[in-house]
Amino acid sequence: MKVFIVHAHPEPRSFNAALTRRAAEVLGAEGHTVEVSDLYAMRFKAVADADDFTGDHADPDYLRIDHEQTHAHERGTIAADIRAEQAKLHQADLLILQFPMWWFGMPAILKGWADRVFTRGFAYLPGRKYDTGLMRGKLAMVSVTTGTSAETYAPDGIDGALLDVLWPVHNGLLRYSGFDILTPFVTYMPRRLSAREREDALEQYETRLRDLSSVSRLFFHPAEDYGPAERLLPGIKARSGFQHNEVADEDSLRGHQS
Amino acid sequence: MKVFIVHAHPEPRSFNAALTRRAAEVLGAEGHTVEVSDLYAMRFKAVADADDFTGDHADPDYLRIDHEQTHAHERGTIAADIRAEQAKLHQADLLILQFPMWWFGMPAILKGWADRVFTRGFAYLPGRKYDTGLMRGKLAMVSVTTGTSAETYAPDGIDGALLDVLWPVHNGLLRYSGFDILTPFVTYMPRRLSAREREDALEQYETRLRDLSSVSRLFFHPAEDYGPAERLLPGIKARSGFQHNEVADEDSLRGHQS
Repeated sequence: MKVFIVHAHPEPRSFNAALTRRAAEVLGAEGHTVEVSDLYAMRFKAVADADDFTGDHADPDYLRIDHEQTHAHERGTIAADIRAEQAKLHQADLLILQFPMWWFGMPAILKGWADRVFTRGFAYLPGRKYDTGLMRGKLAMVSVTTGTSAETYAPDGIDGALLDVLWPVHNGLLRYSGFDILTPFVTYMPRRLSAREREDALEQYETRLRDLSSVSRLFFHPAEDYGPAERLLPGIKARSGFQHNEVADEDSLRGHQS
Repeated sequence: MKVFIVHAHPEPRSFNAALTRRAAEVLGAEGHTVEVSDLYAMRFKAVADADDFTGDHADPDYLRIDHEQTHAHERGTIAADIRAEQAKLHQADLLILQFPMWWFGMPAILKGWADRVFTRGFAYLPGRKYDTGLMRGKLAMVSVTTGTSAETYAPDGIDGALLDVLWPVHNGLLRYSGFDILTPFVTYMPRRLSAREREDALEQYETRLRDLSSVSRLFFHPAEDYGPAERLLPGIKARSGFQHNEVADEDSLRGHQS
């Protein structure tokens, strides 16, 4: 199997770095090919802008990032650093995103990697998203570290359920693009762990990576569960854990307001 | 009132730009002071790294961003571009984040603005988060445009409820730092709107901005609803719209898996 790890932490001695190193070692020893993009080490450009398109623009007077992406894709004029990442993704059977939770999401350098690399034309197209996204057939997994406890990430915790917090990454980025998604590997507050506990966590990660086929996949409703407006069909009970069936006459915004 | 608009769109002729211009005009005409950070125009540095701290580091051998933030704060050695944004935030009574939804979240340049500007020591400290976050007493509001329809962002839509998708911004960034948060202003698919419909949307925004005191605030549970592990106390029913009371014996991860 070909594994592509995208790593987003500025400190080479961090626990995130230890997780990536361990993954590369273990997966290599298991006979897999491992590619790592260490975004900080690469000084990866985080901001999607007009420079991402090296040829003539579809519209030189009005920058529509996604239209320029499709246009540049068709002409092979996507910036070289994006093309290099896309080549790694194209090869990969499994994508691992390794990052610390910053403000309930990916560090900006990784968000920018997603904004720039998951282009319209490469990751999705009109009519080619979710089940039929262009990354279809590939697996993805998040490995995340947190700054707060597992309790705060419980469904009734102050931060909200961890899988719900990760929905924009899991459903928004990865599933939208067609990936099947393994249950995330979560290390809560590695800073609070002793050296022994950190080694235990690395061994748990190692165990998981040695037997990836036994790792459960997250559930997302298949295309056939949705009607033409991309809402769950009558009679389909929401079971992604994030979506929910609407209560009759309840305004979805109003339900949240004080 | 002092209003600070943080604007994250690369195209000056975009609908996002029109929203920011309209907001600045209307709020100015109402007698408010308006400050705008146009992150793309400023070429704002999106990536938090060691260069954010201009003095001696707390630990020159191991970069812990949040520890360096506190250390640099105490010494006045936070990078100048961050300090300038913090000065604007410090002055502001209302923060508006204006952005297009990219991969279910903020564009990387805005995520990086949050990563870098909402420092430990300025936005929060241990024991000073959520209700007691350092931005306490200020208001915040998201104004977001989408690439997909309102239906896809229904609770049973394929993207998930819009307010749930925005939880990492609302609760994770803004509420965590102590802001009270107004209901977001959402423009679905401005690209599909006619010139007339776009003008209608701008007028709706204008109406809202002229009467901010009538805009509902999002509900977040107050500190007294939580127990020591920061989980809702027994008997407190989750009503943020995102959190939920756990079903007995149900593993929160397992509930999502196939």
